[in-house]
Amino acid sequence: MELKRTRNGIIPTIRTASFLVVVFFTFTIISVINAVTVNPLPKPREIKWGEKGPINFPLDIQVTSSQSSDIVKFGWERTLKLIKQDKWVVQALEAEPPAYDPFPPQIQTPGGKRSYTFLYTRTENSTTNTTASTKSNLSLKSVKVDVTNLNAELQHGVDESYTLEVKEDGLIITSPTVWGALHAFNTLTQIVISDEKGGLIIESTVSIKDSPLYPHRGLLLDTGRNFYPVKDILRTIEALAWSKLNVLHWHIVDSHSWPFEVKAYPSMTKDAYSKREIYTPKDVQLVIKFAHKRGVRVIPEFDMPGHARAGYLQIDPSIVSCANSWWSNDDWPHHSAVEPPPGQLDIINPKTYEVIKNLFAEISAAFPEKIYHAGFDELQRYCYAYSNLTVNWFKENPSNTYNDLAQYFLDRAYPIFTNENYGGKRVMMWEDVYLSEDFAAKKVPKEVILQTWNNGVNNTKKLTSNGYDVVVTSADWFYLDCGNGGWVGNDNRYDQNIDNGKITFNFAGGNSGSWCNGYKTWQRIYDYDIDFKLTADEKKHVLGGEVALWSEQSDPTVLDPKVWPRAAALAELLWSGNKNEKGEKRYREMQQRINDYRERLVSRGVGAAPLQPKFCYKNPHACDLNLNKVVPGYD
Amino acid sequence: MELKRTRNGIIPTIRTASFLVVVFFTFTIISVINAVTVNPLPKPREIKWGEKGPINFPLDIQVTSSQSSDIVKFGWERTLKLIKQDKWVVQALEAEPPAYDPFPPQIQTPGGKRSYTFLYTRTENSTTNTTASTKSNLSLKSVKVDVTNLNAELQHGVDESYTLEVKEDGLIITSPTVWGALHAFNTLTQIVISDEKGGLIIESTVSIKDSPLYPHRGLLLDTGRNFYPVKDILRTIEALAWSKLNVLHWHIVDSHSWPFEVKAYPSMTKDAYSKREIYTPKDVQLVIKFAHKRGVRVIPEFDMPGHARAGYLQIDPSIVSCANSWWSNDDWPHHSAVEPPPGQLDIINPKTYEVIKNLFAEISAAFPEKIYHAGFDELQRYCYAYSNLTVNWFKENPSNTYNDLAQYFLDRAYPIFTNENYGGKRVMMWEDVYLSEDFAAKKVPKEVILQTWNNGVNNTKKLTSNGYDVVVTSADWFYLDCGNGGWVGNDNRYDQNIDNGKITFNFAGGNSGSWCNGYKTWQRIYDYDIDFKLTADEKKHVLGGEVALWSEQSDPTVLDPKVWPRAAALAELLWSGNKNEKGEKRYREMQQRINDYRERLVSRGVGAAPLQPKFCYKNPHACDLNLNKVVPGYD
Repeated sequence: MELKRTRNGIIPTIRTASFLVVVFFTFTIISVINAVTVNPLPKPREIKWGEKGPINFPLDIQVTSSQSSDIVKFGWERTLKLIKQDKWVVQALEAEPPAYDPFPPQIQTPGGKRSYTFLYTRTENSTTNTTASTKSNLSLKSVKVDVTNLNAELQHGVDESYTLEVKEDGLIITSPTVWGALHAFNTLTQIVISDEKGGLIIESTVSIKDSPLYPHRGLLLDTGRNFYPVKDILRTIEALAWSKLNVLHWHIVDSHSWPFEVKAYPSMTKDAYSKREIYTPKDVQLVIKFAHKRGVRVIPEFDMPGHARAGYLQIDPSIVSCANSWWSNDDWPHHSAVEPPPGQLDIINPKTYEVIKNLFAEISAAFPEKIYHAGFDELQRYCYAYSNLTVNWFKENPSNTYNDLAQYFLDRAYPIFTNENYGGKRVMMWEDVYLSEDFAAKKVPKEVILQTWNNGVNNTKKLTSNGYDVVVTSADWFYLDCGNGGWVGNDNRYDQNIDNGKITFNFAGGNSGSWCNGYKTWQRIYDYDIDFKLTADEKKHVLGGEVALWSEQSDPTVLDPKVWPRAAALAELLWSGNKNEKGEKRYREMQQRINDYRERLVSRGVGAAPLQPKFCYKNPHACDLNLNKVVPGYD
Repeated sequence: MELKRTRNGIIPTIRTASFLVVVFFTFTIISVINAVTVNPLPKPREIKWGEKGPINFPLDIQVTSSQSSDIVKFGWERTLKLIKQDKWVVQALEAEPPAYDPFPPQIQTPGGKRSYTFLYTRTENSTTNTTASTKSNLSLKSVKVDVTNLNAELQHGVDESYTLEVKEDGLIITSPTVWGALHAFNTLTQIVISDEKGGLIIESTVSIKDSPLYPHRGLLLDTGRNFYPVKDILRTIEALAWSKLNVLHWHIVDSHSWPFEVKAYPSMTKDAYSKREIYTPKDVQLVIKFAHKRGVRVIPEFDMPGHARAGYLQIDPSIVSCANSWWSNDDWPHHSAVEPPPGQLDIINPKTYEVIKNLFAEISAAFPEKIYHAGFDELQRYCYAYSNLTVNWFKENPSNTYNDLAQYFLDRAYPIFTNENYGGKRVMMWEDVYLSEDFAAKKVPKEVILQTWNNGVNNTKKLTSNGYDVVVTSADWFYLDCGNGGWVGNDNRYDQNIDNGKITFNFAGGNSGSWCNGYKTWQRIYDYDIDFKLTADEKKHVLGGEVALWSEQSDPTVLDPKVWPRAAALAELLWSGNKNEKGEKRYREMQQRINDYRERLVSRGVGAAPLQPKFCYKNPHACDLNLNKVVPGYD
C-alpha cells in the first residue's frame, strides 16, 4: 500500500502522473484585517499561519469540478455543508489567562495558626485573543484538490497524508489518496469560521503538512450487550471521520445477544433482544458504505470461543458449554464467566468448527475490510467442567493443560479465517490468546495482530518484543465505560451506611464496583504514551490504538457523551501525538482545543459531554490546576 | 398543613365534607384471564393484588367529570395520555431465575492446582412470569377521584397520601389533597399495561394505600456552572413527578455565571454565558407553574456569601472579594476558592446587604415556595485577605475569628430572608454555616433547615441531635455528578504511563481526580439509611433528602442519563423505604423494578441510562452478584 506522495506548488499545473481536482468559487473582494489563527483538532503535524488576516470564504459557492472520484465529490459536498452549517464562532482562542492579583499576606486571627510563605506571585501580562469580527475585502478564489492515486483502497496502512495551503491564489489540497483529501476537508471545516456578520472567513495564508503517527486509530463499539440502532452507529462514524479516526471496531455480538442476521443460520437472531433490534445484511452494508465514504474502516469482531452463547444456542446447544451454569462470581472457584450470562464454544465438539466455517464465510463476504477480529478474550476454565467432551478429552490426555485446549481451538479456527476460499483475512485477537495466565495458546502465528488491554505498557512491551503487531486498548487508559460503578444486581457490598476508614467496596480506595475504576478523563487518555519504553524495533509493531465502549452500562442514551469528546483526545494522540516540538506534553494547550471541539460536536448534533463549566471555555486557563506552564508528570 | 385523610368505600357516596371527582368510561365486556401483578416504582407502602386476572382498560375513553380542580383535571388528562402512549409491555416481571445446573467437579490438569469444595449447589425450581397476552372480557367501568381538601397549598408537609382501589365497580382514588391524587394517577400509569394486542389491561382487583415516609424528596440541579434550557428543566420536572419526587432544588446561579434576570440589577445577566442562556422572569414563572401543576415545589438557591462572583461583579466589584485572585489549588495555603473562578461577597461592605435586600425582595416575590435556600457553603478564609475592609475589620477587632465573620454575615442577611416585608421565608442553608471547621456561625437560628452533605450519618446525627431540621444530600451517597474524574485543566497528575503499585492519583486507590469518587450507583443511593443510628427524636428532624447534580461536568447533553434512573432510587427510598416487611433491604427485588422503570422513562422521552445489558432485564436475577436471596450488607 505504498503510494507516492505528491505536492502541488502554488500555481496549479496539470500532472500526468496525478489526478487533479479543481474546484472554483465565485469571489468578491473586500478588505484585509488581523490574523485569525484557529485551533483544529487533531492538531496538524505542521501548521503555519500567515499574519495578513482573514479573507472571506464565500457562502454563495459555485463549485466547478472535473473530478471523477465520488469519494472526493461527496466529501467536498459534506465539507461545504458542514462549513455553512457550523458558521463557527470561537468563544475564545487559546491564550494565556489575564494577570491575577499578587497573593496578599494571610490575615492573622486567634484561631488561625496557619501562616504560609508565598510560593510564588505572578504579575505577568497576557492577553486573550478574540475572534475577528471585521469583514475582509478579499475572498478565497478557488479550491483545488490534487490526488495522486484515486484508487488506493481503504485498508490498513493506506497513505492518509495531505497538505493544505491557502495562498493568494486560493486553496490547494494535495494528497496521495482520496483518504488524505478527506482529512484535509475535515481540517478545512475547522479553520473556516464565522465573521460574526453572517459571512465566513479563513486566514489568508495557511500552510499545513499533515499525516498520522499511527495507521490504526479507532473506537470499539459493543452492540452485543446492548443494541444501538443503525442511525446511532452512523452518527458515531461521522464523528470519527471528523476527528480523523479511521477504524470502527464493531464488537457486534456477545453472550448476551446476537443481533447479526445470518443467512446460513436464520435462527440465531432469535437471541436478538427483539425483532427490531437486529442488523440485517442491508443494515450492515449501509454501515460499511457510509463509513467507507468517510474514510472509516469497519472491522468486525465475533468473539469466540469465549463470550459465546446467544445465537449459538439457537443453532445447537451442544456447541456451547456452561450456558446453563450459575455464573458464580459469588463463589469464585465455580465461576464459569467473568460476567453473566456464561457461555463458551465447546472446543472439542467438531460441530463447533462447522458452524464457525459457515458463519465466517458469510461474515467475510459481508466485510470488505481485510482485518478480522476473532476475539479470544477472557476464557474461563471452569466453564468447560460443564462439557462432557472436554472433561473426557482431559481424561484421555492427562498431560494436557488448558493451554493445549486453547491451542486446539486455534489450530482449527485460525486456518478458517485465513483460508483464501473464505476471503482470507488477517486475524486480530485479544492478547489473551498469547498472554492469559491459563488459556494462552503456545503457538500463535506471528501474523496475528494482538490487541492489548491489560497491564498497560508492560504488555505492549511483551507483545512487541516478541514480534507481534499490536493495537493498544489499555483498560486503565482507553476504556470509556469505566468508572460507573458495578452493574450486577443484588450486590450487598453497596449496603453500607458509614465509611469506617478501612478499605471497603465504597470507600477509602475501594473501586466502587467498577473493576476498571476510575473514569478515564480526556487528560488521562491523551497523556498515555503508547510506545513508552519501547525500542525502535518494538515501536514499529505498534499499529495504533482504540478507545473502547463496552456496553454493560451503555446504549444509545449514553453513547454520545461517553464517546465524545474523549475519543477526540485519542484521535490527536494517535494522529499528531501529545507533545510539542520541545517534547513536552501539550495537555495544557489541548484543553482549549478540546473544549472548542466539544462545542462543535454538540452543534453538529453529537451530544458530546461537557468537560468543564462554560466559564472555563470562555476564559482559557482560568480553570487550570497548575498555573505554571510546564509541570512535570509522574513518568 | 394537617389535613384529615378520608377513604371511600367500594360504593361511592357523596360526602358533604369532601369533594367528589367522578370520571366515567364507556366500557365493553370480553373475558377474564390470569392475574397481572406489575411493579410500580416507587413501590407503594401497601399494595394488594387480586387473583382474578386483568380487565380491560378502555382506550376509547369518554371522560365525564364534575370536578372543579384544574390540578386534578390536567393531571387526569396527562395520565390518560401517558397510559395510551406507554401501552406498556413488561419484558419480564420480578421472578426467581430458572434453575441452574449443579456445579460439576473441577477438571484436574497438570497446571491446575486449584481444587475447590462446593460451596453450595442449587436445584430449586422457579418460574419466570410473563405478561398476560390474552384479552379479558371485562372492562373497567368508571374512575372516581375523591379529594377532601381541594385547596391544600403545595408546601412542605402537605398531605400527599392516597388510596387507589380497583374493584368490580371501578377504580376509586381518594386523597386528602389534590397532590395525593396526582401521586395516585402516576401509580395508575404504571399498573395499566398493554394486552399486547393493541388494548390495555389492569388487574381486576388492586388495593393500594400509599403515603411518603418523608415530606422532602428532591433533586438539586445546578444551572450556574452550565446552563440548561427551560425545556430540559421541564422534562426533568415531569420525570420527578412521575417518580413521586416533589422538590426541584434550583441552584440557579454560581460564581461561574448568572443566568437569572433581575429587574433591580439588569446588568447581572451580562455574566450569563450568552444572551440566549438566561432565565427571564417569564421562564421562571413557566418553570414554577409547570412544576406546581405536577405537585413539584421549586426551591430556589442563591448561594452566598461564597460561590458569589458572576452577576455581583456587574453591580459593584467592591462587594466581591478575591474575584481577581488566582484560585490557587496548586498552592493550597493561598487558595481563595475550592474551584475556579473565585469570589465571595464582602461581608464587611455595607453595600453587600443593600444588594442582598433588593435581590431577595425580587426572588421572594417570584417564588411562591415558602422555603428559601441561602447557600452558605464552602467559604474560604484566604479569599478575604483580598478585602481591605475585612483585613481592617480583623485588625480593629484582634480577638475576632472567621466564625465571628460568619456570624456577622448571618446577623445581617438572615433577617432580610425572614422579614415579612420581603415575603418572610423559612431559610435553608448548607450545614457549613453550623459545622464548617473555620467558618461556622456561633448562633444559627433553630428554624434554619440545614442541608447536610459531609460525613454521612455522623453529620446528620450532629445536626438533628442539636435540634435542627435536616435535608440529607450526603456527597458519598447522593451526588450524581461524582466519579467522572477531575475537570480542572493542566493537571499533570494524569500524566502517568505506568501503575507503579503505590497509591497515586490514577491508580491503586487514587481518586482519579474526583474528590467524591466513585460514581454513586442506584444500589448505593437506594441502600443508604438516612436515619441510621438516630434516636426517635432525632429522626423527626429528618425532613427527607435530595440527590444533587452539580454541573462542572454536566449540561443538557448528560442531564437525563446522570439523573435517571438513579433519582428514582432516591424516590423509592424516601417514599416507601428500602426494606421489606421483615426489615430486610430489598435491593434484590428493586433491580427488576428499576430496570423496568428505566425503560419506561426512555419510552417517555427521558434518556435514562441503562443499568445493565438488556439481557438482565429480560432474565430477572440472572445478572445478580449473589444468588442467595438475603445477603447481609456491611452495616
